[in-house]
Amino acid sequence: MKKHNFGAGPCILPQEVFKQAADAVIDFNGLSILEVSHRHKDYEAVMDEARNLVKQALNVPDDYEVLYLQGGATLGFTIAALNMMRDTKRAGYMNTGTWASGAIKEAKKAGIDVNVFASSEDKNFNYIPKDYTIPTDVDYIHFTSNNTIFGTQFKEFPKTDLPLVCDMSSDIFSQEINVADFDLIYAGAQKNLGPAGATLYIVKKSVLGKSTSTFMPSYMDLKIHAEKDSMFNTPPVFSVYVAMLNLRHLLANGGVKAMAARNKAKGDLLYNEIDSNPLFVGTTAVEDRSLMNVNFVLKDEAHKEAFDAAWKAAGIVGLNGHRSVGGYRASMYNALELESVQVLVDVMRDLANKHA
Amino acid sequence: MKKHNFGAGPCILPQEVFKQAADAVIDFNGLSILEVSHRHKDYEAVMDEARNLVKQALNVPDDYEVLYLQGGATLGFTIAALNMMRDTKRAGYMNTGTWASGAIKEAKKAGIDVNVFASSEDKNFNYIPKDYTIPTDVDYIHFTSNNTIFGTQFKEFPKTDLPLVCDMSSDIFSQEINVADFDLIYAGAQKNLGPAGATLYIVKKSVLGKSTSTFMPSYMDLKIHAEKDSMFNTPPVFSVYVAMLNLRHLLANGGVKAMAARNKAKGDLLYNEIDSNPLFVGTTAVEDRSLMNVNFVLKDEAHKEAFDAAWKAAGIVGLNGHRSVGGYRASMYNALELESVQVLVDVMRDLANKHA
Repeated sequence: MKKHNFGAGPCILPQEVFKQAADAVIDFNGLSILEVSHRHKDYEAVMDEARNLVKQALNVPDDYEVLYLQGGATLGFTIAALNMMRDTKRAGYMNTGTWASGAIKEAKKAGIDVNVFASSEDKNFNYIPKDYTIPTDVDYIHFTSNNTIFGTQFKEFPKTDLPLVCDMSSDIFSQEINVADFDLIYAGAQKNLGPAGATLYIVKKSVLGKSTSTFMPSYMDLKIHAEKDSMFNTPPVFSVYVAMLNLRHLLANGGVKAMAARNKAKGDLLYNEIDSNPLFVGTTAVEDRSLMNVNFVLKDEAHKEAFDAAWKAAGIVGLNGHRSVGGYRASMYNALELESVQVLVDVMRDLANKHA
Repeated sequence: MKKHNFGAGPCILPQEVFKQAADAVIDFNGLSILEVSHRHKDYEAVMDEARNLVKQALNVPDDYEVLYLQGGATLGFTIAALNMMRDTKRAGYMNTGTWASGAIKEAKKAGIDVNVFASSEDKNFNYIPKDYTIPTDVDYIHFTSNNTIFGTQFKEFPKTDLPLVCDMSSDIFSQEINVADFDLIYAGAQKNLGPAGATLYIVKKSVLGKSTSTFMPSYMDLKIHAEKDSMFNTPPVFSVYVAMLNLRHLLANGGVKAMAARNKAKGDLLYNEIDSNPLFVGTTAVEDRSLMNVNFVLKDEAHKEAFDAAWKAAGIVGLNGHRSVGGYRASMYNALELESVQVLVDVMRDLANKHA
């Protein structure tokens, strides 16, 4: 029976990518991809392609570096703060959810005086703040483009002349972006890019080597990674290889523009059902609804048992909401088919027909 | 044609492990292992088993934690320094090669006043220092058990009452060790443990939370990882899964004791050939020869073309020496078969028969 994976991440990737990845575990030019030296020319070609495909997919300008590191967005919080720290050692952060809060916490630990100039914590992060003043007396501005746990997404990015930094872990490659608006973008791979274990950095070259931090381990210095073509130390070989496969698949299928249209269609289908179905209600502000993570709850918990049994019987997995919100979360990353969303919608309608 | 992978790492793993890993990329309980949530109970069981098998394989005492992080030994250099820093903020380091030098550099960057009390840099790291005095006015002592690039290995570990820290990246699981002698062991996975992308930490519980460092990002605090059962953030899911498969294979085949005997047999076979073959000479002090990385050179470079052609024709890969040493390096990690070493020895003998 076909599984419909609505999990929040690590998440679904194209079936073709899984097949190609499995093949390479057995045979990559005569060896397993798991036993190939990262210094072998065949693997250097993989790393080069994995970096170049990011540039193609997002139209990354020439004055940016694309790097693959390890440690997830969690280590990225610290790397961002250390690399962006300048004379004021202050930064402006927007607090729009659990991951944004984590970024703030780690920036403070890294020695940044954080100015949280906008927050949606007052309503359990169910909206994106809009009425705020961006500080000007800081080194950089940081935000989180999509909030995986609470299901909100920036439709317009903050506008500032200051260096702009974004954690795009959960919506990168889901839509077109203008990389030139940012000094630093970072993203854990395990949503729209590849398997867990790699973290993408897109950094403006002029940022490198300008930190005022007295603490800068080599691994956290993006300048060192850039100088070594993202091979400063052994990279997460397999994760980068699968990211490369997935980016090939993305570009062969219309790139992020086509993906954005597909994600819009999936979002429309599910949000329309949530809004028209008498049994369900969405949990986030309508104008800030994420196309990646759709949060909703039953109006009456009495239907929980029947609904849970029905979606599980339909082959749906990963639909339970995060403990911070409860209810349900349908994560609909790039690789999730419209057909899978239709399966979920059919289950919801069927429940309404029986119980409403 | 069968390949004999003598590469220095990422390196050969058992063929059975490659097969099982490829299977899981296609089907792990109905999904690809690459799309499974790390919070799913099936994956929590993987992480638990991967941690427990380390305890079994190395007889890890109950007062130690086993953790899988990311970032390789390079990030480990900093993590070790930050977590072991106490009142003196000083540490004693042994400099036995490129990686030991890296550990020293990063400890300094982390704020440690490093006392390099023993070094083999005077002879391009071709031996392990023996005549040294371990300092007593420091927080901890650090060494690198096997020097991947230069092919030397500690046969006896330094003895001290101070906390002992070891980077065991390139020989962990190759022999029996007494974990209780150490406060912290760390090791990049990509030699005897699994694919690149995971880094193992074995840390005494009493070490956790005792750092005096003013800088401690959450990702680098081993106490936080321990409290979260090594799932503080998304782990390198696939790398840990393959490490688990490989540890199962290790334990099903006699564990580290059997592996040590096998590694000794491989080392004896190749070192005996190097010593008896008129065309070759080893580059390291005989008493410090590594069983993991065997460095040797041709006495006469005139034979280089013929030798290189012959080993390549025999299906051998990864035999070229590191640029710091030149010549050849035969890395013979756990999964390399004695048969592969015999193939190399036969090529060397054949060359001598023709040209000596």
